[in-house]
Amino acid sequence: NQTFELDSNPHTRLNILTGEWVLVSPHRTKRPWQGKVEDITPDNRPEYDPKCYLCPGNGRADGDSNPEYTDSFVFNNDFAALLQDTPAGEMNEGDLLVANNQRGLCRVISFSPKHNLTLPEMSVEAITAVVNVWQNEFNSLAENDWIKYIQIFENKGEIMGCSNPHPHGQIWSQGDIPLEIAKETERQKTYYAIHRRSLLADYLKLEQKKNERIIFENDHFAVLVPFWAVWPYETMIISKRHVNSIKLFTAAEKKSLAEAIKILTTKYDNLFETSFPYSAGMHQAPVNNSYYPEWHWHMHFYPPLLRSASVKKFMVGYEMLANPQRDITPEFAANRLKEMSTIHYKTSKA
Amino acid sequence: NQTFELDSNPHTRLNILTGEWVLVSPHRTKRPWQGKVEDITPDNRPEYDPKCYLCPGNGRADGDSNPEYTDSFVFNNDFAALLQDTPAGEMNEGDLLVANNQRGLCRVISFSPKHNLTLPEMSVEAITAVVNVWQNEFNSLAENDWIKYIQIFENKGEIMGCSNPHPHGQIWSQGDIPLEIAKETERQKTYYAIHRRSLLADYLKLEQKKNERIIFENDHFAVLVPFWAVWPYETMIISKRHVNSIKLFTAAEKKSLAEAIKILTTKYDNLFETSFPYSAGMHQAPVNNSYYPEWHWHMHFYPPLLRSASVKKFMVGYEMLANPQRDITPEFAANRLKEMSTIHYKTSKA
Ligand SMILES: O=P(O)(O)O[C@H]1O[C@H](CO)[C@@H](O)[C@H](O)[C@H]1O
Ligand SMILES: O=P(O)(O)O[C@H]1O[C@H](CO)[C@@H](O)[C@H](O)[C@H]1O
Repeated sequence: NQTFELDSNPHTRLNILTGEWVLVSPHRTKRPWQGKVEDITPDNRPEYDPKCYLCPGNGRADGDSNPEYTDSFVFNNDFAALLQDTPAGEMNEGDLLVANNQRGLCRVISFSPKHNLTLPEMSVEAITAVVNVWQNEFNSLAENDWIKYIQIFENKGEIMGCSNPHPHGQIWSQGDIPLEIAKETERQKTYYAIHRRSLLADYLKLEQKKNERIIFENDHFAVLVPFWAVWPYETMIISKRHVNSIKLFTAAEKKSLAEAIKILTTKYDNLFETSFPYSAGMHQAPVNNSYYPEWHWHMHFYPPLLRSASVKKFMVGYEMLANPQRDITPEFAANRLKEMSTIHYKTSKA
Repeated sequence: NQTFELDSNPHTRLNILTGEWVLVSPHRTKRPWQGKVEDITPDNRPEYDPKCYLCPGNGRADGDSNPEYTDSFVFNNDFAALLQDTPAGEMNEGDLLVANNQRGLCRVISFSPKHNLTLPEMSVEAITAVVNVWQNEFNSLAENDWIKYIQIFENKGEIMGCSNPHPHGQIWSQGDIPLEIAKETERQKTYYAIHRRSLLADYLKLEQKKNERIIFENDHFAVLVPFWAVWPYETMIISKRHVNSIKLFTAAEKKSLAEAIKILTTKYDNLFETSFPYSAGMHQAPVNNSYYPEWHWHMHFYPPLLRSASVKKFMVGYEMLANPQRDITPEFAANRLKEMSTIHYKTSKA
């Protein structure tokens, strides 16, 4: 008589932040792969590219020229998905055709004047400068009282729809609360109402006790593969202090976050000895709405690669129509990332 | 003073089947694309490939050989994500680490003995044979009283994680009700409780009146771009009769569904003159659970291409972390598909 084991039997796990389940198929890694193999973008970019719209001094689509900036540089997205001057309006026919206008502001942040860098290759000081820009942008966008949520994120790598390899991130802020934030708000609120404690603080305490999915910790942050991770090497950075947004981070916390990002992204690059693609972004409390004491700042990393630099996980048929699914276990992924060096493979080969 | 227009202003639309919103940015199609361009798989496959595990007579991973079949052929997935003999078990630590075992059965269906065909290139008779297999498989899987949901789907094209170009689909059936089905059950149930009518029947009636998103209809099915479509050319096939699963389709309905699939996938191929990739699948009532009079059978098509055979829509940073987003409007997509010929571009060029 077999007993049920998380590391060998198919099972579902609950995402406590969204209330949704992921299907885990640990035995399925033996499946041979004859499908799509991704191109690996050659990594021989120049420090300055005259055709890049993010390099210092170059022209942009709106006719402006970038300044000769030396650390990071922020501007309004020239092809923004959300616009500030959207007229008010709504539509509802029989609760069957329902639409609302949506105002927003979209910003682009160049992380470095150097076209050929990525976050793991930047110094902690330079990443700290980026964290400062995120905090400043968050604070100034939140001054618009019609803005209710500010999404800070980065798409890294062509495979993640990034159309320019110059290191950069984006901020989309808007008048409504987007889907994922609404889910996480509800779950955190419910837990807080019952326990008067942060859901993620309690979760982190349990993960520290178990020590099965934590990759590393520093003074102010813990980095782990969440129990309910969907993407093969999905991770989460959780702040040790229960704060609900980046606005409240101290100088020490900002430096500590920069350190955590540098170590995590270096481990990612070392995993398959490639510039590791991902979409990453912070989740934090909505703004200009209510107080949100339940909200606990965290940052998600969703990387698509599964087996190598060129074989990714496809979230397709079953996943789109029915339920997210993963093959390797979160514990396996955490162990792999834990054993990766914190020294970037390019440096150690140089 | 501007007025709000769905075809030019950013807005959100409600998906009445899930209760979730999509962000629509109609003005954003002007964005130039410098990002990833997909390889187009050359389309010169032989009718028989000795290395394909789906071709008649060939060997498979489990050691079996395929019969010399002449229409379609079904077998258990050799690398199934779900297994029948999963032991019972569960885990719950403080509502923070929560997991349950999951039993299931996964089947693979070869649509044709010919390695080089796809659904739009098959005859209506041959597609009808596939629909018959879907119905038979549904009925026989439902005889297992522990199976609660049966997901019938197809991943088409390398870009959709399809690892073998031989025309085929899959069925994953399982002991729990997956996420998307749970959402659609709840919404349909709520509507039915209030109106005593099918949500999708009322929606279809309104779409027929408006005639802005319907691509075509035949005797038993309507094909449209849903008002809340997320993927650029996402479509839905809705049965005109309110039935809750494929089990109840008559011979006339099965032939009509085959016709609808042939026309829709032919229009898809003609759009960018390429073998159009997608994930598609049926949504229908759970089985062996309760009666589900609210459920209305439909089939979703989620195709990734946006601008051409090689430029797709990326559901990445903002979409993964915050909210699904689209650029072209559903009405634009419906018009494009409406004007496409029902004769396959390969035939008309031959
Ligand atoms: O089962 P296949 O065709 O090997 O695999 C494909 O479809 C599955 C179901 O949607 C996905 O989980 C896989 O990521 C995808 O590559
Ligand atoms: O804004 P970008 O970098 O041009 O575009 C990229 O990120 C956006 C936000 O996640 C997505 O909507 C696009 O599909 C993606 O290509």
